[in-house]
Amino acid sequence: MLPRLALTLGDPNGIGPEVVLKTLADDGMRERIEPIVVGSEAVLRAHAAALGLEEVIDGLTVWEIAPGVTPEVAWGQTTPMGGRLAMRAVERAADACLAGEVDAMVTAPISKEAIVLAGYHVPGHTEFLAERTRAEGYTMMLVSGGLRVALVTTHMPVRAVAEAVTEAAILDKIRILDASLRRDFGIETPRLAVLGLNPHAGDGGVIGTEERDVIAPALDAARAEGFDVHGPFPADGFFGQRGYERHDAVLVMYHDQGLAPFKALAMGGGVNFTAGLPIVRTSPDHGTGFDIAGQDRADASSFREAVTLAADVARRRQAANG
Amino acid sequence: MLPRLALTLGDPNGIGPEVVLKTLADDGMRERIEPIVVGSEAVLRAHAAALGLEEVIDGLTVWEIAPGVTPEVAWGQTTPMGGRLAMRAVERAADACLAGEVDAMVTAPISKEAIVLAGYHVPGHTEFLAERTRAEGYTMMLVSGGLRVALVTTHMPVRAVAEAVTEAAILDKIRILDASLRRDFGIETPRLAVLGLNPHAGDGGVIGTEERDVIAPALDAARAEGFDVHGPFPADGFFGQRGYERHDAVLVMYHDQGLAPFKALAMGGGVNFTAGLPIVRTSPDHGTGFDIAGQDRADASSFREAVTLAADVARRRQAANG
Repeated sequence: MLPRLALTLGDPNGIGPEVVLKTLADDGMRERIEPIVVGSEAVLRAHAAALGLEEVIDGLTVWEIAPGVTPEVAWGQTTPMGGRLAMRAVERAADACLAGEVDAMVTAPISKEAIVLAGYHVPGHTEFLAERTRAEGYTMMLVSGGLRVALVTTHMPVRAVAEAVTEAAILDKIRILDASLRRDFGIETPRLAVLGLNPHAGDGGVIGTEERDVIAPALDAARAEGFDVHGPFPADGFFGQRGYERHDAVLVMYHDQGLAPFKALAMGGGVNFTAGLPIVRTSPDHGTGFDIAGQDRADASSFREAVTLAADVARRRQAANG
Repeated sequence: MLPRLALTLGDPNGIGPEVVLKTLADDGMRERIEPIVVGSEAVLRAHAAALGLEEVIDGLTVWEIAPGVTPEVAWGQTTPMGGRLAMRAVERAADACLAGEVDAMVTAPISKEAIVLAGYHVPGHTEFLAERTRAEGYTMMLVSGGLRVALVTTHMPVRAVAEAVTEAAILDKIRILDASLRRDFGIETPRLAVLGLNPHAGDGGVIGTEERDVIAPALDAARAEGFDVHGPFPADGFFGQRGYERHDAVLVMYHDQGLAPFKALAMGGGVNFTAGLPIVRTSPDHGTGFDIAGQDRADASSFREAVTLAADVARRRQAANG
């Protein structure tokens, strides 16, 4: 039985519908997954017409989230309608995952500004899904082949990072990451690397003390719980010496420390995976691409990889439960 | 006339002498530069013997910095003698650059801990050289082919970074970087990228305000002075979309934001260049390697690249000076 994947269209005015259509146009994709597109069919048709991909829609299952409405695509615009359609699809797909109607969801990009215009008060997909699925904890993770980067802190100002890097936060993320590597990636004994907060991981206390006072104690506590954790490593040396090849995942302390080297290495093929949710959810690692919407210029490789990863994880969870 | 390059041995107990010897053993290297090794000849001979590279020393010019002394190599150890020998070589080479006896210097790694044991009170090579050469300002820069990363802040805790990112500091680094790209790299009209401080470059003020309040005004001021500056860009997107291919250099706000992606991309071939000094100085982008000292395991590619870059910059400055 093929994994059933809900693919949300994202903001109708961006490149979301385009990367969904291009992914489904791939030879063999429908032999590997059973896709269900979640969004407005009128939006999907408008994008398909702009791209000359109308035949992709033939026989495709679409869950209409705006019945009786024919929304106009406002190419590249930030609109309340765009935010509303984007979020309705996410709600529908999440509920379908929870109800077992589908095995996983892959979300095309939404605009934070547009969802605010639509009256939603959530920082983004991840936080919204964590709340809707009543997740106890979750970790943002970026995946590209064997390179897996998980974050202790995510979308916060650099000014606030040092205070947010606590022993409890690190330990919490290690637990979630380890469990996800076992359950979702099929790694029996995950080997985790943890980076330092400061340059050179503090250089023995000369460039900051958080490694000694916060991170090392967190790693000791993790080891006492049986986790195979290593570090704290200096971020630059870790990536320069390809430490990620010797570990199943690396836990970084903040956004750019992990995502700048990750994207430098993944070069467009990275996938965002939310570890710790009761449902399976992946997304591409790019944004709405308003500047190139409707121009047939979007690269679908990240969305394609997101679909592949979601299918893999769904299959593994099915096997474990079955 | 070949550029005369002073090569300092670095800490005698680390891999410095090894990467110097391996670089000089390269076919053709001595047809491109006139090397002068600065250090203890006894140390150089001990490493050459351990590596079976004795023939590299034949006919080589060595400036003895410990005359009448035969220091023993304490492989992999942090010792006061190691710090003392390392720094004496740096002093001698810097003075030779200032006096015009050599055209550039390339420094093998020193141990911060060892130089403290030896009684030196400097954070590292760069700060020491800036003071000794009475530089008015300088910028740490990493170079790997056309990828050039310069830093606004360097070896400071993450906790202190946001306060140190000031309009004046950014503008100062832009001036030094632009001048160096023209003078040292032969780029007539440098095109500079500047990164944001926060994730997503602040996402319109949602994740920090320094982009709006500090960085954007600094870029405006720089443009008013005639510099071709672009940004602030989100760090992850910049590296993921290879923005560095469309700019001659990228100015990053702090250490790991620039060095983690740089080293991920340079993979051992990166060079540290100190822009803004009156002398020409480069170094490899790795440390003393105490754990692998004397075992013939050191990769000399970064030192080799450092020698090549120093020779290139020296030639360009010579040509400019007529």
